[in-house]
Amino acid sequence: MNPEQAYADLVRRMKEIAVLGNTAGVLGWDQEVYMPAANAAYRAEQLSLLAGMCHQKFTDPKVGELISKAESSKEMTQDSLSDSAVNLREWRRSYDRSTKLPQKLVEEMARVTSQAQVEWVESRKENKFSRFQPWLDKIIPLCQEQAKCYGYQDHPYDALLEDYEPGLTTAELNRLFPPLKESLSALVAKIGSSTRKPDVSILKRPCPIPAQRAFCRRMSEAIGFRFDRGRIDVSAHPFTTGLGPADTRITTRFEENNFENSFFSTLHESGHGIYDQNLPSDGHYGTPRASAVSLGIHESQSRLWENLVGRGLAFWKFFYPELKKAFPGAFDDVTLEAFHFAINHSAPSFIRTESDEVTYNLHICLRYDIEVALIGGKLKTADIPSTWNEAMRKYLGLTPPSDALGCLQDVHWSHGSFGYFPTYTLGNLYSAQFFAAADKEVGTLEGKFEKGDFTPLRKWLNEKIHAQGQRYRAGDLCQEVTGRNLSADFFLAYLKGKFGNLYGF
Amino acid sequence: MNPEQAYADLVRRMKEIAVLGNTAGVLGWDQEVYMPAANAAYRAEQLSLLAGMCHQKFTDPKVGELISKAESSKEMTQDSLSDSAVNLREWRRSYDRSTKLPQKLVEEMARVTSQAQVEWVESRKENKFSRFQPWLDKIIPLCQEQAKCYGYQDHPYDALLEDYEPGLTTAELNRLFPPLKESLSALVAKIGSSTRKPDVSILKRPCPIPAQRAFCRRMSEAIGFRFDRGRIDVSAHPFTTGLGPADTRITTRFEENNFENSFFSTLHESGHGIYDQNLPSDGHYGTPRASAVSLGIHESQSRLWENLVGRGLAFWKFFYPELKKAFPGAFDDVTLEAFHFAINHSAPSFIRTESDEVTYNLHICLRYDIEVALIGGKLKTADIPSTWNEAMRKYLGLTPPSDALGCLQDVHWSHGSFGYFPTYTLGNLYSAQFFAAADKEVGTLEGKFEKGDFTPLRKWLNEKIHAQGQRYRAGDLCQEVTGRNLSADFFLAYLKGKFGNLYGF
Repeated sequence: MNPEQAYADLVRRMKEIAVLGNTAGVLGWDQEVYMPAANAAYRAEQLSLLAGMCHQKFTDPKVGELISKAESSKEMTQDSLSDSAVNLREWRRSYDRSTKLPQKLVEEMARVTSQAQVEWVESRKENKFSRFQPWLDKIIPLCQEQAKCYGYQDHPYDALLEDYEPGLTTAELNRLFPPLKESLSALVAKIGSSTRKPDVSILKRPCPIPAQRAFCRRMSEAIGFRFDRGRIDVSAHPFTTGLGPADTRITTRFEENNFENSFFSTLHESGHGIYDQNLPSDGHYGTPRASAVSLGIHESQSRLWENLVGRGLAFWKFFYPELKKAFPGAFDDVTLEAFHFAINHSAPSFIRTESDEVTYNLHICLRYDIEVALIGGKLKTADIPSTWNEAMRKYLGLTPPSDALGCLQDVHWSHGSFGYFPTYTLGNLYSAQFFAAADKEVGTLEGKFEKGDFTPLRKWLNEKIHAQGQRYRAGDLCQEVTGRNLSADFFLAYLKGKFGNLYGF
Repeated sequence: MNPEQAYADLVRRMKEIAVLGNTAGVLGWDQEVYMPAANAAYRAEQLSLLAGMCHQKFTDPKVGELISKAESSKEMTQDSLSDSAVNLREWRRSYDRSTKLPQKLVEEMARVTSQAQVEWVESRKENKFSRFQPWLDKIIPLCQEQAKCYGYQDHPYDALLEDYEPGLTTAELNRLFPPLKESLSALVAKIGSSTRKPDVSILKRPCPIPAQRAFCRRMSEAIGFRFDRGRIDVSAHPFTTGLGPADTRITTRFEENNFENSFFSTLHESGHGIYDQNLPSDGHYGTPRASAVSLGIHESQSRLWENLVGRGLAFWKFFYPELKKAFPGAFDDVTLEAFHFAINHSAPSFIRTESDEVTYNLHICLRYDIEVALIGGKLKTADIPSTWNEAMRKYLGLTPPSDALGCLQDVHWSHGSFGYFPTYTLGNLYSAQFFAAADKEVGTLEGKFEKGDFTPLRKWLNEKIHAQGQRYRAGDLCQEVTGRNLSADFFLAYLKGKFGNLYGF
């Protein structure tokens, strides 16, 4: 077998794994959206069988041999941006990672986190950190053990970040986050001391769900989500899932008295969906060349449409009349400006998922600091609540009245997902930096939004980001697309501009 | 490995195959109900991969060895109705069948029928039998070859029947069908010459789809379909699919001006669904002991609820007021008797799927005669249209004006599904025989229906039929449950009673 044949065999195998992975994807989607709850245990059995099959196929020693064989070809690797070089780079990375963990550790992690999730639900319900703490005491050493098996240069947390944001390091986050924290805290203080306050009660006015459904679909379509190759359904927690080259599904949820929530959820998931729908497909489907770069880059696409577009004044200059028509009577007495101010209200809150553009990243920075300290062995789990509450006071001026509203609010740690949180903030930073670059290259985007034209922005994203697949790692993509390394400057400038205008500073 | 261990290993393997089979089931359901059409080719790839996996796992020579080993145990086989004996009997049957066809024949059949389905669609559209005929000329020899590989005693058609109705023979159908045909033809003539005619136009009155949806769901629930372990959705062609021990899904379709269609489709599929939901599950799931007996028995359950219950006067004595409330104004001027007459209108028609309780089985008998003649080499494909039309004239007094309304109307032959049609009629015959037995054992069922009580009938079916799984073959089950072999007498008596009353003879 020559290197070209080895490569062809790899492509075939990886596509088969993708077919099985997407099959699991359909089962997962169905479980959240339509499956009768009584079938949960059986569905778990199905998903576990498929996951085992995918893992077995991917970690087959033959795959390792094929990768090595293909890597020996100069032709296929010399141009590091060629399809074959990109695919081999990513297959090598994933293969090495997935073969580095001993089976025993994988099983122990699965066993512990499966119980820990149940315990987390109960601990939060009982508002009792002491109940969850022993589980963290099991999970953290397992994560540290994982990091040791994966290997790292500077900090064990680097090895964990790699699962979500390949190539990202703790050092890089330590460069980005502290100045961001400082500027955001200052911004929170300025907003807090402003005498201007939006009337957010208008957002709780009843909007019939069928009309919300129609309006959300219309907006999703307007920004470019394709319903001939996708769907929108309802689930308890909104998500996006790619189930095939022409099948991308988003979900949202509706509450009659919370139009804002369903609307921005839909826009957010549509952003993820537009990324997925515009990854390369023909011939590439199932390979890294046709896959998303990282969680951070994925989040940049959702946040860009949700916030930089959907919470912008230009967007609503065009759509506010349509909104008024969609919900007759609901907003008759509300000016465009008042509506725009309301959807951009900012105030410190205890819960990350209820926070806003200004405060969100402070919630993340707080978690990041705690995660790094825990994985680095510098913080005891017993000290999490006090550390958490102190940071909340410092950054947001709030003291959580309970751990349920504090360090017990998120599910992530019970999954053993240390290293996930930072990707949310990276998404926000990337979104602003990409938007600024697009604005410069395409011409003033807001002028187009005011006319309801989102195509130039979407096409720019399609070409610069979506069509690239994993050709570049996140950092390189940013450099390539914006001409600069990732920086918080764009995001901060965007926030200061918008919130300065709204709150008058 | 002792026989008990071999048996345990078989159970484990078969459950894994069921898990994969149900996974394919979810993909198939999703394809018909929610998948964007653009994803069809990829979904076909997924389904083909899963089908291949299931086939490979089931035909693994190791499975054959395990069955032989387990069969050597007296303990597990001496009581032919024990779980182990039942499972081994059915595994042996399926294993032998699935290993009897040479790979080349299976592939050739798949290739030919895949093209033939496309050709059938076009031929019907163009009303051009000569376009479809060459495909039948390919498919029939392949079916004959299949029959030869499977083996048979009397007639090659027996070997094909076995796919749908294990143990059924052409000889048995030749006993059942001719007198049925005769009696039904006579009944058609009597109805045709009656001066009483129902006003069927009332069934085309507009009924808003949301109200139809709610009413159909309510009726499905009333007869015992469990929505905590099932769903109802919309698809182009109604179907029922079991996706797990607590997940049975039915579909229907709605047209504003055809309430009758969606209602009886829902009742029909609910009947299938109730069977599926009440098969044994705990511990047995994935084995023959927990599977349906045959297509004919499955159809008996759908037809029983659709026709013997749902088209009965007693049912509507209870539900007609509710129907009137569900569609305000639509039936205000229609008496219960007029409504009942309308939903039992009978008249010859060209299309099988549009026929009624009296005429339906004549459509089947006609197809059966042609199938047996084709597979037996007694009829040339070129003679299908004339044979078809002659039979239509003889049984139903109609001459199809075109092949599209005649021998090109059904998809089955393009699938190579010879032997499928008779199961529809078997379902009808079984339904009446089961109903009569239940009525005798439980006490007058109609008296209970008038009070909206369907539980006694459902419980009887649960116990006598559903809970048995494949313990008995269809014929034995009928003997066991009704004390008699299958006979057309019950069905004919039921028809004569109902239609005699309605049409006055």
